Amino acid sequence: MPKYPKTDPAVAGIKGSTFSALAHRLARHQGEVYPLHIGDTWLEPAEGCRMQDLTVEEFPGMHRYTAPQGYGPFLEAVAARASARTGVPTETANVLITAGATGAVGAAIGATVSPGEEVLILAPYWPLIEGIVRSFRGTPVAVPFIGEADSPESAVSVVERHRTAATSVLYISTPNNPTGEVIPASWLEALCEWAREHDLWIVSDEVYEDYVYDGTHSYCRTLAPERTFSTHSFSKAFGMAGNRCGYAVGPSEPLAELIKVSTHAFYSTPTASQLAALRALDGRGDRWVDGIRPQYLELGLRAAERLGVPAPQGSTFLFLDVSERLDERGLHGFLSDCVDRGLFLAPGPSFGPYPDHARVCFTSARPDVVERGIDVLAGLLGRR
Amino acid sequence: MPKYPKTDPAVAGIKGSTFSALAHRLARHQGEVYPLHIGDTWLEPAEGCRMQDLTVEEFPGMHRYTAPQGYGPFLEAVAARASARTGVPTETANVLITAGATGAVGAAIGATVSPGEEVLILAPYWPLIEGIVRSFRGTPVAVPFIGEADSPESAVSVVERHRTAATSVLYISTPNNPTGEVIPASWLEALCEWAREHDLWIVSDEVYEDYVYDGTHSYCRTLAPERTFSTHSFSKAFGMAGNRCGYAVGPSEPLAELIKVSTHAFYSTPTASQLAALRALDGRGDRWVDGIRPQYLELGLRAAERLGVPAPQGSTFLFLDVSERLDERGLHGFLSDCVDRGLFLAPGPSFGPYPDHARVCFTSARPDVVERGIDVLAGLLGRR
Repeated sequence: MPKYPKTDPAVAGIKGSTFSALAHRLARHQGEVYPLHIGDTWLEPAEGCRMQDLTVEEFPGMHRYTAPQGYGPFLEAVAARASARTGVPTETANVLITAGATGAVGAAIGATVSPGEEVLILAPYWPLIEGIVRSFRGTPVAVPFIGEADSPESAVSVVERHRTAATSVLYISTPNNPTGEVIPASWLEALCEWAREHDLWIVSDEVYEDYVYDGTHSYCRTLAPERTFSTHSFSKAFGMAGNRCGYAVGPSEPLAELIKVSTHAFYSTPTASQLAALRALDGRGDRWVDGIRPQYLELGLRAAERLGVPAPQGSTFLFLDVSERLDERGLHGFLSDCVDRGLFLAPGPSFGPYPDHARVCFTSARPDVVERGIDVLAGLLGRR
Repeated sequence: MPKYPKTDPAVAGIKGSTFSALAHRLARHQGEVYPLHIGDTWLEPAEGCRMQDLTVEEFPGMHRYTAPQGYGPFLEAVAARASARTGVPTETANVLITAGATGAVGAAIGATVSPGEEVLILAPYWPLIEGIVRSFRGTPVAVPFIGEADSPESAVSVVERHRTAATSVLYISTPNNPTGEVIPASWLEALCEWAREHDLWIVSDEVYEDYVYDGTHSYCRTLAPERTFSTHSFSKAFGMAGNRCGYAVGPSEPLAELIKVSTHAFYSTPTASQLAALRALDGRGDRWVDGIRPQYLELGLRAAERLGVPAPQGSTFLFLDVSERLDERGLHGFLSDCVDRGLFLAPGPSFGPYPDHARVCFTSARPDVVERGIDVLAGLLGRR
């Protein structure tokens, strides 16, 4: 077959799946498997909010498109929720429903970043943000932040060190994926003030806002509504990751630009997924969260204790420094040893410059499976 | 509120919804509404292939993510279908499941076009292709084709006139949206040969492949498998537009680049939507299509006859030259007159340089509603 034409170099620079080599190795594993690499939940969504609960008798035409911005009644429910949570008056014109928070972050980055512009990404970070910036031909700049900053002033000096004339966006994730840390309100205030001074956008990824165990989640939009697009997810909130339904909230005039990007990425968010999330917003979703949050916390505490690391402040992850257990094969060797015991972890380099780290999700499988997986990991780390 | 930072000029150059001004006018309309502007169907999907038919009892974990490329058994079913239809041996490594064909075209354009490169778009064209190219900072070049080319040789000379050193992709849509024309195999052969000669990619949008009434649909992949990404949709095929499930098929090595783009646009395609489409592929979907194709054809024939235009060869659209009915207000005035009678059409400029055209979908509402809407249009066009 003749050779195909060239592909785009920016996309070539995006890392492909970091799991595939290890996945092939895992396929040869005999015995129980512990898939603690992905951020997901073992639970089904709340009753009444599942696909089987949505019928064409109740919702005729439910397999047709909605408007690209979102289904009207759902936009209104999300706007009301955003108003109540942030204290910022929020109308439907401030809201865009998206294919998961991935679609929301993509629309925000696509609308605000021009080729060659730089996005400062507080690290460690959600793995997809780097590739999203590259997709739109921007330049991702990792800013090691968690564990580096220890005050509002140092938070600002950390980001300021990386700012250039090409910087256009600051990306923040709190509660943080992968560390679980919750960035304090006073630090966010200082960062928002700094962003305003330099006329930068803020993309604030808050998909774990409902999973805070220690501290309080603060909304960047409350502090800088004119320059913040916050992104949220029903994936994480209500256990509907496969539905691909999330949203972005921000100032209405530039939000129209986000709508253009999302319309051309996936047109509209799946109609049934919007209906399921709207149902969950009637109280069923929040009750579901209230019911499982203590269980998530207990799982996190137990995993942290078994692994000898600090308890998570939020999210569903622990980010482990495994440097003391690495031999000449490096991190890949350690992760291969894990795979040979059925344990799948996410490699540190997916989250920024962390060649000696690995991420564990403590909710991605049934609690007994997670517990056995954590035991395997504790053994490999020499914990007794 | 302080002013927000600047947004990206390429995105600013994407047209927003062409419907919104007219939609506000329509909201004031009293009486029946004829929404013939959108490409959709009034039918529900086949029984057994609706959301209500997918239960967590049968599919535990069905609200969780699948792998970004797609759900394994579904990838296999799609690969088998692509092999059978195109005659090109197709494996799962050649297939990417996407959020509708929109996601498939976006992944293909994102992976193959670098900023400043040009995409030749055979016009009239599907409205989103222009914005997709701009989203990835490429340059869309409209190539008036349908009605211009009348032989394989003239097809090539039409595209060759627009080729520059910056051209990287040729975008083809057949059966054509909005004209319904089916591009003959001999023309596609000549275009593929020309693309090979100049080392161009081909993105072949074939979402109406199942709705051909006159002529035969030919697959570009059969002719140039090394450089063609074809895009397909369960939206159109099986009446599942709101599910957002489609796919791209092409050479495996560069397909890995498309997976990177789609992963960063929407991560994975909704799990329930993949399950619904997989069910439809067991024969239920094809039977549904076989059942409604004659009805679609009859609707198209009746609309074409009433409006005094040629019968559609495929798709669910008619593209009308309304120039003889335009007054000093131009197309907007004509479309406003339609809206004042409850009739919504898609404006010609969405499809390329067609200031005197409008598109009608003859399947977007119940047949009796469509028929009354077509009557309204016939009256405005002075047909008796």
